[in-house]
Amino acid sequence: MTTSDKIVLTRGVPPPEAFPTEELGACFDAALRENPAVVLQYGQQPGYAPLREELAGEYGVSPGEVLIGNGSLQLQDLVSSYLIRPGAAVFTEQPSYDRAIKTFRRRGARTVGIPLEEDGISIERLETALEREVPAFLYLVPDFQNPAGATLSLEKRRRVLELAGEYGFRVIEDIPYRKLRYEGEDLPLLREIDPSNVITMSSFSKLLSPGMRVGFMISPEDLIKEVTALGEDTYLSPVLPTQAAVAEYLRRGLLGPNVDRLKDLYTPRWKAMAGAVSRELPGAQAFIPSGGFFVSVMLPEDANAQDLVGRAKDIGLVLTPGAAFFADPDEGEEADGDRFVRLPFCAVTPDQIEEGVQRLASLL
Amino acid sequence: MTTSDKIVLTRGVPPPEAFPTEELGACFDAALRENPAVVLQYGQQPGYAPLREELAGEYGVSPGEVLIGNGSLQLQDLVSSYLIRPGAAVFTEQPSYDRAIKTFRRRGARTVGIPLEEDGISIERLETALEREVPAFLYLVPDFQNPAGATLSLEKRRRVLELAGEYGFRVIEDIPYRKLRYEGEDLPLLREIDPSNVITMSSFSKLLSPGMRVGFMISPEDLIKEVTALGEDTYLSPVLPTQAAVAEYLRRGLLGPNVDRLKDLYTPRWKAMAGAVSRELPGAQAFIPSGGFFVSVMLPEDANAQDLVGRAKDIGLVLTPGAAFFADPDEGEEADGDRFVRLPFCAVTPDQIEEGVQRLASLL
Repeated sequence: MTTSDKIVLTRGVPPPEAFPTEELGACFDAALRENPAVVLQYGQQPGYAPLREELAGEYGVSPGEVLIGNGSLQLQDLVSSYLIRPGAAVFTEQPSYDRAIKTFRRRGARTVGIPLEEDGISIERLETALEREVPAFLYLVPDFQNPAGATLSLEKRRRVLELAGEYGFRVIEDIPYRKLRYEGEDLPLLREIDPSNVITMSSFSKLLSPGMRVGFMISPEDLIKEVTALGEDTYLSPVLPTQAAVAEYLRRGLLGPNVDRLKDLYTPRWKAMAGAVSRELPGAQAFIPSGGFFVSVMLPEDANAQDLVGRAKDIGLVLTPGAAFFADPDEGEEADGDRFVRLPFCAVTPDQIEEGVQRLASLL
Repeated sequence: MTTSDKIVLTRGVPPPEAFPTEELGACFDAALRENPAVVLQYGQQPGYAPLREELAGEYGVSPGEVLIGNGSLQLQDLVSSYLIRPGAAVFTEQPSYDRAIKTFRRRGARTVGIPLEEDGISIERLETALEREVPAFLYLVPDFQNPAGATLSLEKRRRVLELAGEYGFRVIEDIPYRKLRYEGEDLPLLREIDPSNVITMSSFSKLLSPGMRVGFMISPEDLIKEVTALGEDTYLSPVLPTQAAVAEYLRRGLLGPNVDRLKDLYTPRWKAMAGAVSRELPGAQAFIPSGGFFVSVMLPEDANAQDLVGRAKDIGLVLTPGAAFFADPDEGEEADGDRFVRLPFCAVTPDQIEEGVQRLASLL
């Protein structure tokens, strides 16, 4: 690797070698031939029925509590347009998923960032914020968070749900990375602890393919009906051949083996990123997750973070500006987006990771 | 056929026998295998590049003037959210496509219905409306209109475009039925006469499959860029395998033969509907188009139109309430939605058509 090779540490996308192309091609063909009158027709507004049933089984709910749409961001947009009244607050972790923040704002929310700690959202700061106002909902990525990598502890999961019950707000748990755990044991889903105020969202983008755009949400049936109606008004019917291909993929029992294959592919990259960050950026506060797509660092206050993205570009390192992940960019000490660096590791090789983190260190 | 067989004359959907299932299955498989790193990945926000190129070639524009999304209703929603300022007017034909009217309203428009005549929108009434206000845009279905079946004459096409230039408003021409012409010659597209204020929208729903949800728009590049950015904010990337399958279908030269097959399938149904309406409903003002999915009738003022949908249901005939197609339900004489009946003929057999129209006649 020479210094002139560009190293891209921006979006959390799977690498092409992650896609089970042959298997998916066969699933498309089979799904179309088996059920063309449904798969190629208008309809199935809450999602392709066999896939709803598969997901209902997995999450221990009824099919009426499942809605499948054209990717989870589209569903977040629809849920937001239904739940957010103009001027309402939406609470997010700070930092949080930049596109979610943008969606909530476009749908009329004031986004309030609650600082993220190594074990998830700060309960103390959440309580302070709740004394001021009750949000339309709290948006969390509890497992291997995007962008920081943090995982919400069991104790905090319980406390968040208690607060939701006490103050009366909904919690969106967005869990696209959850199945990509490289060490340790799963913590329970928020919905497994207490589903009453929980909307669970996820997708097959990280487990199969983002281009398929198959995302889903699980919530009480009344909300599913409202969001389904908004979806029908917006896009008439969801795209069905992709949902049918995913249903066929699950029916054939291919998802588990594919997730295992992905873990084998990503584990060395995860280890390389964790090692490089510890070695090269010893002064930074690092989030080293047990799974997912992202390591992240908060650079020390005395680090030279000014125009970091621009200076990185000059030496062939592509970074995402940290401030994009901050719902409250001016919120003070913890909220210094300029010092926050997200380091996605799945779409780069261990060699690229070593070189990339070395370049980052050279700038500070 | 017995009286107890339900006859459904509601939505304009293709029948299952219209779907080229085998060919599409093969196209999915081929498209995935050929280009998985693109088709299964995030990206291609303005639409799958090879399909944009195909469409650009067909419409004589550059690929930068083409945007492909998850069905044309989704694109109408995005265009509306960009073009409609709160309280702005949108002009539509009256009657017009019910879902489009609903979309424009949800995005903040006051919809103003301009009466439809047998040769398209009333120019006189359009001019009167323009003296009062200039709309964000005028929405037209110029070929075999949904719901009435009318086709806009060449003279009126020219005049609409003159008015658009004079007053400064955009015209959306929505042309999903255009290629399904059963007799006569195509009139030029509005964009072929003068593209400067025209947004062309269409889809493959009526030519291939609605479940695929592949719709597109053609407009100047600056608008494409704005709507693409809104699409990226809303659904991140479009669903790509379906777009890639359509591109492969076109590349293999299969669309023309499929359209010919559809015309062979639909022509007897179209003739049956035209004949039955003339014979059974002699007092009604009938729109008999030269193509598309719909015949329609405006019942005479002295016909018994009260609770027509409910009474039809009692004798096994399912109709869409006419008022849904009227942007101005209280607009007066031409706008009497209760007397308007849309009669889609593609998803029913000639026998069902005969029987259905006889049942309708028996109610009046």
